Amino acid sequence: MESFGASIQFDRRLASYDIQGSIAHAQMLAHCGILSKSDSEKMVKGLKEILASIGKGEFVWSGRLEDVHTHIESALREKIGDIADRLHTARSRNDQVVLDLRMYLKDEISKIVSLIQQFQKAFLTLASNNDDLIIPGFTHLQRAQPVLLAHHLLAYVEMLQRDGERLQDALRRLDALPLGACALAGTSFKIDRSFVAKKLGFSRILENSMDAVSDRDFVIEVASALAILGVHLSRLSEEMILWSSFDFGWIELPDAFTTGSSAMPQKKNPDVFELIRGKSGRLIGNLSRLLVMLKGLPLAYNRDLQEDKEAIFDSIDTVKASLSILIYLLPLIQFRPEALKEEEDFSSALDMAEYLVKKGVPFRQAHAVVGEAVSYCLDQNKTLKDLILIEVQKFSKYFESDFKNCLGWNASVNSKVSQGSTNPKLVKKEIEKWERRIQNTEDRRQNK
Amino acid sequence: MESFGASIQFDRRLASYDIQGSIAHAQMLAHCGILSKSDSEKMVKGLKEILASIGKGEFVWSGRLEDVHTHIESALREKIGDIADRLHTARSRNDQVVLDLRMYLKDEISKIVSLIQQFQKAFLTLASNNDDLIIPGFTHLQRAQPVLLAHHLLAYVEMLQRDGERLQDALRRLDALPLGACALAGTSFKIDRSFVAKKLGFSRILENSMDAVSDRDFVIEVASALAILGVHLSRLSEEMILWSSFDFGWIELPDAFTTGSSAMPQKKNPDVFELIRGKSGRLIGNLSRLLVMLKGLPLAYNRDLQEDKEAIFDSIDTVKASLSILIYLLPLIQFRPEALKEEEDFSSALDMAEYLVKKGVPFRQAHAVVGEAVSYCLDQNKTLKDLILIEVQKFSKYFESDFKNCLGWNASVNSKVSQGSTNPKLVKKEIEKWERRIQNTEDRRQNK
Amino acid sequence: MESFGASIQFDRRLASYDIQGSIAHAQMLAHCGILSKSDSEKMVKGLKEILASIGKGEFVWSGRLEDVHTHIESALREKIGDIADRLHTARSRNDQVVLDLRMYLKDEISKIVSLIQQFQKAFLTLASNNDDLIIPGFTHLQRAQPVLLAHHLLAYVEMLQRDGERLQDALRRLDALPLGACALAGTSFKIDRSFVAKKLGFSRILENSMDAVSDRDFVIEVASALAILGVHLSRLSEEMILWSSFDFGWIELPDAFTTGSSAMPQKKNPDVFELIRGKSGRLIGNLSRLLVMLKGLPLAYNRDLQEDKEAIFDSIDTVKASLSILIYLLPLIQFRPEALKEEEDFSSALDMAEYLVKKGVPFRQAHAVVGEAVSYCLDQNKTLKDLILIEVQKFSKYFESDFKNCLGWNASVNSKVSQGSTNPKLVKKEIEKWERRIQNTEDRRQNK
Amino acid sequence: MESFGASIQFDRRLASYDIQGSIAHAQMLAHCGILSKSDSEKMVKGLKEILASIGKGEFVWSGRLEDVHTHIESALREKIGDIADRLHTARSRNDQVVLDLRMYLKDEISKIVSLIQQFQKAFLTLASNNDDLIIPGFTHLQRAQPVLLAHHLLAYVEMLQRDGERLQDALRRLDALPLGACALAGTSFKIDRSFVAKKLGFSRILENSMDAVSDRDFVIEVASALAILGVHLSRLSEEMILWSSFDFGWIELPDAFTTGSSAMPQKKNPDVFELIRGKSGRLIGNLSRLLVMLKGLPLAYNRDLQEDKEAIFDSIDTVKASLSILIYLLPLIQFRPEALKEEEDFSSALDMAEYLVKKGVPFRQAHAVVGEAVSYCLDQNKTLKDLILIEVQKFSKYFESDFKNCLGWNASVNSKVSQGSTNPKLVKKEIEKWERRIQNTEDRRQNK
Repeated sequence: MESFGASIQFDRRLASYDIQGSIAHAQMLAHCGILSKSDSEKMVKGLKEILASIGKGEFVWSGRLEDVHTHIESALREKIGDIADRLHTARSRNDQVVLDLRMYLKDEISKIVSLIQQFQKAFLTLASNNDDLIIPGFTHLQRAQPVLLAHHLLAYVEMLQRDGERLQDALRRLDALPLGACALAGTSFKIDRSFVAKKLGFSRILENSMDAVSDRDFVIEVASALAILGVHLSRLSEEMILWSSFDFGWIELPDAFTTGSSAMPQKKNPDVFELIRGKSGRLIGNLSRLLVMLKGLPLAYNRDLQEDKEAIFDSIDTVKASLSILIYLLPLIQFRPEALKEEEDFSSALDMAEYLVKKGVPFRQAHAVVGEAVSYCLDQNKTLKDLILIEVQKFSKYFESDFKNCLGWNASVNSKVSQGSTNPKLVKKEIEKWERRIQNTEDRRQNK
Repeated sequence: MESFGASIQFDRRLASYDIQGSIAHAQMLAHCGILSKSDSEKMVKGLKEILASIGKGEFVWSGRLEDVHTHIESALREKIGDIADRLHTARSRNDQVVLDLRMYLKDEISKIVSLIQQFQKAFLTLASNNDDLIIPGFTHLQRAQPVLLAHHLLAYVEMLQRDGERLQDALRRLDALPLGACALAGTSFKIDRSFVAKKLGFSRILENSMDAVSDRDFVIEVASALAILGVHLSRLSEEMILWSSFDFGWIELPDAFTTGSSAMPQKKNPDVFELIRGKSGRLIGNLSRLLVMLKGLPLAYNRDLQEDKEAIFDSIDTVKASLSILIYLLPLIQFRPEALKEEEDFSSALDMAEYLVKKGVPFRQAHAVVGEAVSYCLDQNKTLKDLILIEVQKFSKYFESDFKNCLGWNASVNSKVSQGSTNPKLVKKEIEKWERRIQNTEDRRQNK
Repeated sequence: MESFGASIQFDRRLASYDIQGSIAHAQMLAHCGILSKSDSEKMVKGLKEILASIGKGEFVWSGRLEDVHTHIESALREKIGDIADRLHTARSRNDQVVLDLRMYLKDEISKIVSLIQQFQKAFLTLASNNDDLIIPGFTHLQRAQPVLLAHHLLAYVEMLQRDGERLQDALRRLDALPLGACALAGTSFKIDRSFVAKKLGFSRILENSMDAVSDRDFVIEVASALAILGVHLSRLSEEMILWSSFDFGWIELPDAFTTGSSAMPQKKNPDVFELIRGKSGRLIGNLSRLLVMLKGLPLAYNRDLQEDKEAIFDSIDTVKASLSILIYLLPLIQFRPEALKEEEDFSSALDMAEYLVKKGVPFRQAHAVVGEAVSYCLDQNKTLKDLILIEVQKFSKYFESDFKNCLGWNASVNSKVSQGSTNPKLVKKEIEKWERRIQNTEDRRQNK
Repeated sequence: MESFGASIQFDRRLASYDIQGSIAHAQMLAHCGILSKSDSEKMVKGLKEILASIGKGEFVWSGRLEDVHTHIESALREKIGDIADRLHTARSRNDQVVLDLRMYLKDEISKIVSLIQQFQKAFLTLASNNDDLIIPGFTHLQRAQPVLLAHHLLAYVEMLQRDGERLQDALRRLDALPLGACALAGTSFKIDRSFVAKKLGFSRILENSMDAVSDRDFVIEVASALAILGVHLSRLSEEMILWSSFDFGWIELPDAFTTGSSAMPQKKNPDVFELIRGKSGRLIGNLSRLLVMLKGLPLAYNRDLQEDKEAIFDSIDTVKASLSILIYLLPLIQFRPEALKEEEDFSSALDMAEYLVKKGVPFRQAHAVVGEAVSYCLDQNKTLKDLILIEVQKFSKYFESDFKNCLGWNASVNSKVSQGSTNPKLVKKEIEKWERRIQNTEDRRQNK
């Protein structure tokens, strides 16, 4: 039974939060006169020593005690004797464990938000490194219209921005002190919860003790934000895997991040991207796991809730590891422009249609005309650029000598003028906007 | 193939948004000189007629056309002829469909947020109707400490508040215009996206055209918020099912919301709560469905994305129906105080321990003493209240004549003083705070 | 409340099973002397008329009655009066609804198993149509070794075979009569459950009445088998989408199954495959939904269980529609061998290494030698086939004049000899084996 | 990168299978003349030594090598030098890893099937220990009809039987040798796959090399069977938690398996059941994770597949630990018959209705009559048993002096006669049937 219910193998990562929480609690108890000043100081001193010993890796984690809380209590009792028991005044495991988890998540979310920003910067670097590269944009994985690579990459910067904001919204929502809820009903000791909240850096306290110990929606919200982020990473990974395939051949991945066969030095397996794509399953699975765990539980604390930790720890570890490696890997990707085969595709077709619409041809008819021109090219084994005026006028008299201006990838991207489009000037501005925005955030963080 | 890819059976609910979007687009095209004023006016007139005909239920939804967009285009063409084709200038299905979905979600989230508030009010009503009722609070579904029913109910008000805030965060994030992204790259027409955004009430525009047509994280975020809400409802349902069972017998559900057997008029099946508990599966399943759909998709638009709609529609319908029925049902629940059996349980034990701690007994020892007293009672078939001073002093000399004051449910809840505790005065203030807060929000909404 | 709990909008598809079940029940009641023969005959006659009227589409499905059972009961009462009430003797909704669902699943699984076989035949047809086509086989989406297209396709035949077997195992397990369990405890009427089982074609009866009405694992098992099948289809879809992209260009999809743009006639969007890939989300979501629904439910019947039907109906509809369209589409796929670019890749490298190993070179060293040769080719812009003996002997003296025999896709696939390998003779035998096996199953089915 | 892709922290549990597979492979290579007999013997000897050293816990697992295969290869090379390299002839990581996983699953499924049987026996023991105990059977968690506790418990025996059969079906399906598939295409070495299959106890070989290395449906099928089993355990857990609550009070859990508070010795928290209920989330999450991982992967091997192991390992560990503890815990549960309150409920109402139906009263009318009687009792504060003939005849003249025979829990369960019902004689026979069946399986297993 003991080993079945034990959580020490995974909850020991909460140790420093548990100790900080206990220190604040001990100080508050003295502050409110519930504990003598000297007892409180002994506790704080003992707890700090334990924290230091954990930091130095000297603390002994025994399998005999079931969780992180009992380990620390037991160590404190060894240090200061029975006084240690008084630390549990006006506190219960139920509010203590959820305090630790909230403190942990606050820290981890901040780290992940910072990684997200570094990853956004990696995108901006890759974009700047290839700032005039045009690639085919896809719909249905069919070449549709040329776009700037930078424009494509900025789409991920947008996704990541939302991912970061979702995490920050979750952070704001979970930044509330549960301690003082005790088992479920509060306490008859005259404690000062705001004192503890201030000490631990919480911006407010939870206002209902039963909610404080029984709900885990804050964990699920984080898991959900991480799952969405993971799906975004799976999309990027899919593209990098595609682009580095022989048949695409658009990019070359840095050797240090691929595996291969000694017999096939040209074959570079995009393992990192495959693993990250696969790990989206893990993030989605962890989210399901948490939702199922909470389904149908009556108030207040139930032991089922212990199942919250491994899932969210795994999601956080997975996202941090994935982002950390991608931040290094991404800017090292080399593009092979010659593999893009601009001359072979017909992605200027829609530009040609817009040309005609502007000359007054109704939308549908313009499309039909261009369709005929493309078919003609396919028959004649020509590209649109090969066509001369006399040929295209067979399809529509609206073609004039300027029609060549709309052809080709360069012309295409430059012709775009709408806000948010792939127009190079607009894309450049977007890159600058993001660089400024990220710089500002970093400045703000450092000033804190 | 046609029927396989058709979406008209479910996307017709987007019709009014599709039309509003088209009207704004037509007006913008004229405003920017891309379309003649008279053509634009004909379009707008035609579209308004179609909207009206849909409102009156006269519009014919044919199975022959695959989606809502083609239905409306086709109807417009019948009304105003080939001019209708020009409406598709500087627009594509890819940005159009995601515009409709965002407009739809904005409306639906507002409705759900409003339902959530009404549901919070229902909790407040039920709490006020039973404002001095004390019930046993559970941990591990074991009776632990008495709490005010109102305190228990306020835990749900807190959860619902976060549910509403999550939805509003999602709303704020998705409140951005995708139109103008066109197929994926933007357009060479000099359109004015801000004009459209303003007409349609969007607070900003999406800044990257590829992101605009390819991402669906806004749908997943809403589905996630609704799944968490659904899990909260499953917890409430579980409690109501328990409480209305014969063995608990705490509550009586209103006849109109139960089913039963003519032979067993006393048996009232809590179907509504069972269905809502079961429907959490649907909400979690829809969330999984969306995440899986998006996993591993390269940019930009892929037809897989069509699978987004049925899932989110189902989640929204489910939540709206569940909340709507609960709003009516909840305040009608009748409590049966005689079934709570205060006299039989030992939930004052912890209060007795706190009594001793305050008298100077160390925490652990106090617990041990009370444990002995409880065991004694069980042996003697007594309750704690039955004990007299001379009996308890056998367990600890710290018991004094005031010890009876800490016994009983009333004493227990009144003894609590910590913020967020079940103390009746604090709970009363919490109810008032929530009433004010909800009133304020409603006032703000009406003033808008 | 009524509309909230109503299921008629989806459970009417069970009507014919409900009626068949009632007919068998009525006959059994007469057979056992619980009902008069004439009453039973009236019931049977009435029920058959209702069945016929449903078949002809004349039956009126009113929104007023909540489910399929009440509709049919009510119609029967209209036909034969109060006798209809006696049909409910020794039967309850709880065992009735699960009977209907089991009968429905038995039918649907048989249909899907048959579709799976037709789909396997479609693979065999496509394989035979391209029986000597060699394509690059991938690991990590990198070209690794050449394989016969037929060999690649047979991998799907294997997967589908297991999918079919899983469904048949589920069918065997769910092929048991629940009727007679009544509400949960059985009945005091001397009914004959085996009589009913035989009439309805069940191979046995469920032996525990509480299990019969409370469990839904048979639904989940089917949903799981369908989800795995859906994932297999998503893999095929991914490949077809890749192969039909411009950058691969390996295949051309039939026009009738693609969408496109009138301006870009060469762009054929693989919508069917995208939709099927996306629908894997639906199948996985439905599975989650059912598991969550059942989690934590006490015995016996709970109303939550009503949520089982929409999920499994949707999974069955999705799989049937997907398979039906793929059966037509698959054999129409055209391959473009010129796009495979055999001459450009180095997928013979591993064959060259095996050549050396057979000449006595240790495995690792052989790989290193070939690696050098490939690097040399890349430098010199040559292919392995371009190398002459004198060049390769610079890398290893073990190369002899026969070394060219191991080069090239044809040589590669022909060199394979192991069972299950891509050797053309073995692959041909596999195709024949599958053709025979499927033919045998079809013969057996027709003889039944 | 290395640590990101490393799997040694979890795949080392496959070590013994990896070594057994290598031994069989080395023997086959010699048997086929591909390797010299002496080289093969050296390999086998070295591998056996490594196996022994792992068994004794002496083997050093270095973080430096990424997976179990490289650890063992490296150890072998240290022992026997470069000969070790030849072991990789006609084998690849792709078929090797999936061999290990299949061997592992074969073993683990057998263990779990055996645990399931022991758990079924635990149910039979608990049933026999309380063989005449009648409890209220529920629908909608409302008391509906009395049933034998043994009958209730046998419902779980049925569920578990199907769980075991599902696992055995999965076992049968996955019991096929992948080795020899090599990277994806097979090999040009004349290997003998049947030789290896026989050595390793596989009943057949996989017939398609690409399928062998790329598919993981066998893992998902096992995960699905375990998830369903987990949901069954969650239902049992829910019931035990309910039954051990104060308000039910039906059972007492053994102290060794509960936690509590020293101050409240009467409060026994059913932690084991709560944890097991919560762990259903883990099992469902792992299933989702695997399905998502496989979604949309092209053939053949992709590195994403490495994500298969942690999920299935976790599901297997979870189920084994849960079953192991339940096998001990279940028979120790004590029932408190006095808490069942037979005299207070009206669960004989349906029996009274059946009484009337047998006297010739139509079904509906009988129900109405009983309903009136129940209402009368409620008004008069009587139970059905308190009624005398003259009272009931006010409701229906069909009541005769024998009507009391149908009242009471004993009468109720004894009146049931249908197969599968809760009739004590039938239930006794069922217990005996299960005892025989399990005994037979155990005998067969021991004879093997």
